[in-house]
Amino acid sequence: MAVYTEVSDDELRSFLLDYDIGEVVSFKGIAEGVENSNYLLQTVTSAEAEPKNYILTLYEKRVRPDELPYFLGLMDHLAENGLSCPTPIHGRDGAALRELSGRPAAIVSFLSGMWPRKATPLHCAELGAAMAHLHLTGASFEGHRDNNMSVSGWEKLVAATRDRADEVTPGLSDMIVGELDHISANWPLDLPQGVIHADLFPDNVFFLGDRLSGLIDFYFACNDALAYDIAICINAWCFEADASLNITKARALLRGYAAVRPLSRAEYDALPQLARGAALRFLLTRLYDWLNHDEAAFVRPKDPRQFLDRLRFHQQVDGPGAYGISYEDLNG
Amino acid sequence: MAVYTEVSDDELRSFLLDYDIGEVVSFKGIAEGVENSNYLLQTVTSAEAEPKNYILTLYEKRVRPDELPYFLGLMDHLAENGLSCPTPIHGRDGAALRELSGRPAAIVSFLSGMWPRKATPLHCAELGAAMAHLHLTGASFEGHRDNNMSVSGWEKLVAATRDRADEVTPGLSDMIVGELDHISANWPLDLPQGVIHADLFPDNVFFLGDRLSGLIDFYFACNDALAYDIAICINAWCFEADASLNITKARALLRGYAAVRPLSRAEYDALPQLARGAALRFLLTRLYDWLNHDEAAFVRPKDPRQFLDRLRFHQQVDGPGAYGISYEDLNG
Repeated sequence: MAVYTEVSDDELRSFLLDYDIGEVVSFKGIAEGVENSNYLLQTVTSAEAEPKNYILTLYEKRVRPDELPYFLGLMDHLAENGLSCPTPIHGRDGAALRELSGRPAAIVSFLSGMWPRKATPLHCAELGAAMAHLHLTGASFEGHRDNNMSVSGWEKLVAATRDRADEVTPGLSDMIVGELDHISANWPLDLPQGVIHADLFPDNVFFLGDRLSGLIDFYFACNDALAYDIAICINAWCFEADASLNITKARALLRGYAAVRPLSRAEYDALPQLARGAALRFLLTRLYDWLNHDEAAFVRPKDPRQFLDRLRFHQQVDGPGAYGISYEDLNG
Repeated sequence: MAVYTEVSDDELRSFLLDYDIGEVVSFKGIAEGVENSNYLLQTVTSAEAEPKNYILTLYEKRVRPDELPYFLGLMDHLAENGLSCPTPIHGRDGAALRELSGRPAAIVSFLSGMWPRKATPLHCAELGAAMAHLHLTGASFEGHRDNNMSVSGWEKLVAATRDRADEVTPGLSDMIVGELDHISANWPLDLPQGVIHADLFPDNVFFLGDRLSGLIDFYFACNDALAYDIAICINAWCFEADASLNITKARALLRGYAAVRPLSRAEYDALPQLARGAALRFLLTRLYDWLNHDEAAFVRPKDPRQFLDRLRFHQQVDGPGAYGISYEDLNG
């Protein structure tokens, strides 16, 4: 569950005195999300007013407090430039990042929509377009954050998991060591860079019907190759339960993206490598969480083997055409 | 956490076709509550309308489906008669109890307010008055449900826990066996009966500031001695962290109650026995959950020893005056 820190009603009321959003009328912990504590907060500015919804987040130990200004500043920047995402609510003194119950805390606007439990090609097309808008809008953001979940991060994770990886599935240790060697030697370093979301899984993308209504959870956002974000989404959205790639979804994702921001030839050609890297990244973090699962955390670790299957798929493709569309058709 | 059953967006949309409340625009699992899966549901009836909040509950395995009509009917009855509580939303065919994702399910109205993390005497006075209103309003409800958590229920729980009770604290086994013997022989059977809530802990009572805004969670409601509900609240609201009774809170609770529904002399005199029974009831269910804790359930069991301390307190009182007020002052 996603409530690690309990907030008392007195603490909350005095916290809200620093804002201009009225008085609390409801406050409920939200079950979704695993990194931070999230609450649905309702306030009213007068007795007659309709309650207004917000999300209050307490940042827990996996988030580095010195990185929060980057994340909140990015959300401010994106919202100001028309991207639908949670907008940080600033206190009377202008600060969005505050403290509550001994934790860094922020209030953001509430976003309508539901994340799709079963993604369709239509969802993937919408996602591609929204991600491209994010990439274009991020170009004017002044903040910078290195991606600590890229090659050097994977090296640390391989070192931390290789001795026990075979507990999950035989041969996994050799697999991740070999794959890291391959990727380190072949990782594309000269692709167009910018702000990426880096965690655009379905539960971070809201829809109203078939229309995308917003993106949430920017707490892995960083500066990296833009096309790597696409590779993450191919892994996160386009595989079926039997580990096969749904080419219709991948094509819709790429087409939706390229219609807003055309891919360069180098980005297109790098897709298989980037997709291998993205699969390895989620394989490694899930493997680490699986091996170091804290029973007291009440979070069920996700099965790492899902991403092992995806990694195997990307290893054997014979080119970017495997993702369902030629470069000419994509940008044509 | 309180989400055991996952609901897909497709399932939810088709479920809502049977209601007149519009289309879903948001759906989030709520972390609070341990028995059932609760979701915050927001719908709109038109593109311009403000979203309206509801609670959607999926009833999990600890709730008997054949008892749900009693609970939902009671909430209907109480709300119709002016008590602030969640109101079941009926489908187009009139039924409030339906099925979703293989579970019995119902939508109820959303209640503003927060439960008090730190109860004050003012809260206790408000609680007493609301509980008395509930008892008066329940008198005209036609449903009937025996209290399966009274003496015969405690006998089963003692039988199921006595062999391992000393794992929690030495001597606990003898304590619960002896207390059950005493209570069985002395349980008051001729007190005024009616509908009781039977679980009015602070997290089931909402406040806006110091004013009570509603009661929730009627899934232990049953027919029993009305004064037993008061005894539960003395246990649930009036003890401090060091296990001492806060007499100011107990007096406020009793006064708030009696101002709406005066206590009979027999009810007042029975308070120590009823309070012993109530302490034993929560000691036993928490003990059972502690000993039979399912790691996979992701619910942290509550410490049973809290209620052992309260039981010891009630065992040694020399009469109902120990709860802070004489019969004459209470009804005078």
